[in-house]
Amino acid sequence: MLKDGEALEELGTGGLKIIQSDKFFKFGTDAVLLSRFAGVKPTGTAIDLCTGSGIVPLLLSAAYPALSIEALEISPDMADMARRSVAINARSEQIHITCGDLLNVRELYRGRQFDLVTCNPPYMKKGSGRINPNAEKAAARHELLCTLEDVVRAAAYLTKPGGTFAMVHRSERLTDILCQMRAANLEPKRLILVSDRPEKAPDLVLVEGRRGGKTQLTVETLYIEEIKHGWKTVSLRNAHR
Amino acid sequence: MLKDGEALEELGTGGLKIIQSDKFFKFGTDAVLLSRFAGVKPTGTAIDLCTGSGIVPLLLSAAYPALSIEALEISPDMADMARRSVAINARSEQIHITCGDLLNVRELYRGRQFDLVTCNPPYMKKGSGRINPNAEKAAARHELLCTLEDVVRAAAYLTKPGGTFAMVHRSERLTDILCQMRAANLEPKRLILVSDRPEKAPDLVLVEGRRGGKTQLTVETLYIEEIKHGWKTVSLRNAHR
Repeated sequence: MLKDGEALEELGTGGLKIIQSDKFFKFGTDAVLLSRFAGVKPTGTAIDLCTGSGIVPLLLSAAYPALSIEALEISPDMADMARRSVAINARSEQIHITCGDLLNVRELYRGRQFDLVTCNPPYMKKGSGRINPNAEKAAARHELLCTLEDVVRAAAYLTKPGGTFAMVHRSERLTDILCQMRAANLEPKRLILVSDRPEKAPDLVLVEGRRGGKTQLTVETLYIEEIKHGWKTVSLRNAHR
Repeated sequence: MLKDGEALEELGTGGLKIIQSDKFFKFGTDAVLLSRFAGVKPTGTAIDLCTGSGIVPLLLSAAYPALSIEALEISPDMADMARRSVAINARSEQIHITCGDLLNVRELYRGRQFDLVTCNPPYMKKGSGRINPNAEKAAARHELLCTLEDVVRAAAYLTKPGGTFAMVHRSERLTDILCQMRAANLEPKRLILVSDRPEKAPDLVLVEGRRGGKTQLTVETLYIEEIKHGWKTVSLRNAHR
């Protein structure tokens, strides 16, 4: 099942394993946070955009065995790797990986709508910061193949009326996020600002929008107190929840 | 100098005093936070919208003796009270109070632009929460005489290119704030989420926009650790600044 440069890593949750490769972008704490943040309808449907190695669908599948999960990844190699991770975990019935471009969601998922859309998109604008010489790592970090606006537009198409879109992103993009979600009728309902510790500024944001939702935002803060064994177990404390 | 129902209160800063009245909205911590948050050009010009009893101009005048300050208040009685507070503090040269409606800023301040525009506007939308039976208190809390959009539009007219607009508001309105500021070309540059303590969710936001600024937002959190003597001294700690 494993190809050159790949390793099978344990996720420390429900016996899950995931293939990670030195050649591709490895998932981070943010993907784990996203999977815990997303408001899930346990017997509903979900789709993860920019799924990469499939971390979000895998974590969701373990937490919600009756959830039906689609996932979209543009890189054929990563989509293949994600599919193999799904197979290793015997989740091929529950998780379906599509290789395709989110600019084409109308063709890829014509008329299909989901209770939940998730995305951990590339964070950085074109022209900001150093571009990774590895094309696939570069596309995972920078908005080379899709922009935030593209992601939000695709999500709006795929979200049921009353369904939710959950995303993790950088706090410096917060205005872009809230404005584009509102413009796409995915009204922001819940925002969590994430920092490592209470005395640090939040650098990540978790945002949930509801399609057709009323305008009223709940804002919370969350601190990652402890990350054990690298990314494998993320222990969160959010005292007021 | 004092009328029926009025009292002269000490601000505990630079010997400042301010008239407060049981008949009108009394300023809160948020106004004090706003005056500290606002990025001031010490020898420049500033205007405070919805000035109420004049708290923001008074605090700014004490901190920046060479700042030239305008303030606008729609209630004739509150504008009169603010003018008397200015006179009591011998700041009539530095602070000029105008009684007028911010919907008419184009007529009131034709062609005038300021380095800094501040506002502590009414927070609540029409139709939300209980309306105070006292008309002037009601107008200070609810968007009866002006909406957030009106405030931002007035601020955009009054802010110099490259100048800043600083506002305090409720966190539940964050999407409205960021979207309307961006739409008015007052690009949000700095956001502070304010909560009483680290374990509490932030309920206030301080937002600074720059007219014509580039899109990039700095997000911080701030905790009010201690409020001594009611509102008089607000002691803030923001560990990472």
